[in-house]
Amino acid sequence: MSTITILGAGAMGSAIATPLVDAGHRVRLWGTHLDDHLVAAVRAGEPHPRTGVAVPPGVPAYLSVELDVAMAGADVVVLAVSSPGVVDITRMAAPFLKDVQAIWLTSKGFAPNPAGRIQLLPQAMEEVLAEGAGAVPPIVAIGGPCKANEVASRRPTAPIFAAAQAPERWAAMATTDQYRVAHSTDRDGVELCAALKNVYAIALGIADGMSELGGQPFHDLKAAAFARALAELRLLLDAEGADPWTALGLAGAGDLEVTGLSGRNKVYGMRIGGGERAGEALAAMVAAEQTVEGVPAVELALKFVEQRHPHLIEDLPLLVAIHAVVHQGRPTEDIRKAALSL
Amino acid sequence: MSTITILGAGAMGSAIATPLVDAGHRVRLWGTHLDDHLVAAVRAGEPHPRTGVAVPPGVPAYLSVELDVAMAGADVVVLAVSSPGVVDITRMAAPFLKDVQAIWLTSKGFAPNPAGRIQLLPQAMEEVLAEGAGAVPPIVAIGGPCKANEVASRRPTAPIFAAAQAPERWAAMATTDQYRVAHSTDRDGVELCAALKNVYAIALGIADGMSELGGQPFHDLKAAAFARALAELRLLLDAEGADPWTALGLAGAGDLEVTGLSGRNKVYGMRIGGGERAGEALAAMVAAEQTVEGVPAVELALKFVEQRHPHLIEDLPLLVAIHAVVHQGRPTEDIRKAALSL
Repeated sequence: MSTITILGAGAMGSAIATPLVDAGHRVRLWGTHLDDHLVAAVRAGEPHPRTGVAVPPGVPAYLSVELDVAMAGADVVVLAVSSPGVVDITRMAAPFLKDVQAIWLTSKGFAPNPAGRIQLLPQAMEEVLAEGAGAVPPIVAIGGPCKANEVASRRPTAPIFAAAQAPERWAAMATTDQYRVAHSTDRDGVELCAALKNVYAIALGIADGMSELGGQPFHDLKAAAFARALAELRLLLDAEGADPWTALGLAGAGDLEVTGLSGRNKVYGMRIGGGERAGEALAAMVAAEQTVEGVPAVELALKFVEQRHPHLIEDLPLLVAIHAVVHQGRPTEDIRKAALSL
Repeated sequence: MSTITILGAGAMGSAIATPLVDAGHRVRLWGTHLDDHLVAAVRAGEPHPRTGVAVPPGVPAYLSVELDVAMAGADVVVLAVSSPGVVDITRMAAPFLKDVQAIWLTSKGFAPNPAGRIQLLPQAMEEVLAEGAGAVPPIVAIGGPCKANEVASRRPTAPIFAAAQAPERWAAMATTDQYRVAHSTDRDGVELCAALKNVYAIALGIADGMSELGGQPFHDLKAAAFARALAELRLLLDAEGADPWTALGLAGAGDLEVTGLSGRNKVYGMRIGGGERAGEALAAMVAAEQTVEGVPAVELALKFVEQRHPHLIEDLPLLVAIHAVVHQGRPTEDIRKAALSL
């Protein structure tokens, strides 16, 4: 039995408490200053406002000002804040992170460092932690098809834990009968897939939105975009020195599949596919308090490629088309062309 | 401009007439004795009963007794009959096939030869054609995400044509703006993916059916099964000496995606996931005149593996679980376990 502190009391932070409790650990949940109302709901024993599922009894919930109490004696920390908050929360928690055995990361995306270089989140965290000159604990990337509401309610789920060394140790620690954790040493590959699935899900949503327009559906287009997305992930993983087969597995095809079934990025894409302009669609999502992570992510993803593999851009027509539709007002015809460009 | 005769006037046979006409060819449609009522509908200019879409004007439709007229002077033949009919129709058409430039095959599945060996359809056709001691034209396997009703109504579609030699020639012949044909020399890989997608779609349908039961959906399970299916395809392709990357492309992930969105195999799976026994579910499909190709295909697929790669069975838990649920009355719990076994 280990003591595991979850940083971030949103959907995924609260959800992962369920399997960790089921696996026999002492689990604590801490919320950022943005999460105080969520922590209050958890303390009141109410269903979590984001998942509709109550956190298991016996999990203490801490307010943002109680970080030191929440972290005291933690063996493992799960970082589960929204991607733009990862660097700040890592810096804030750094004094307490020196002695933990590992940091498990459910957040996904890209972060620019102070020099303007776009990084994957684990690298960004390692830079921040290295500033403190203490030991940097291993960072374990969590990928694969995991919807927070399903994890919280013990629906069968197959996540994948990736770390440079001995990922099987952390996978075994978290595995239950319903939350069966695969493992991989390809942390960069898993993290890249995780960061990009929200982007490609926008294209899948656009095809779904076109289907709603009447007549025959656009399922062939959705499937062509799906295969195109995997082909582009394979190229990117290969260029990064990651394992391109990761694109075929839980972190790639598996996570893209679940993200194309539901979720905010897909819903945003459906609005565009159904005829709304990208700006209108985003405004409607924001009005409904729905963050669309793929919108900033596609900007950062394109910069990431431009900085690191500029020659690769021409082989990533779907990524370029999504960026053009989301940020440059291009019509969805760009998506159709890119999806059929295999 | 070539003369292309389509053998089989069902959903896919009638549908592919649209892009072939659009690509500028002289197209003829011939129906087997099972298709006479479909040919009558096409001749009357009515929407095709299976797709709801009319065949383009100018495509003559021939009855089963008019095979010689339909085949006279054909440059290319498209074979689009249901998989159990492929060997018989090949034998029947063999005298007319000696002089064609190629046979394009949209049918998918396995066929036992007279010695009881399970083969992929192109191999089975080649054996039949070789009996005639004439030249055997190249057989081009058509895979990728292609729903007949979408192809017929010019929805964007990305099929893949696979042939041992010069597949780009045939792909270019069929490509239009909406039917953009990719190509591959990995005919066995494309054909194996095509044959197995109907099988794995049953598992995807089962997860969808469980979602209908209320509470949180089972999207994580569907996505885990999706990734598991691709992992098993990769192993099988590798064992067969095919290109395992074909599993990541249009023929593998692309076709599995579209088959998991809709189609009869998925609907049959949904019935089982929703609580019906496999026999009840099949009876309901049969009563609605819906053939579920995955049901015989999973039996043949398992025999195919047992005959050719018996050591591989233990690495294909999802294939084994689908067979057990469909043919041995096992509960859907087998699917859950197999999907989480990565």
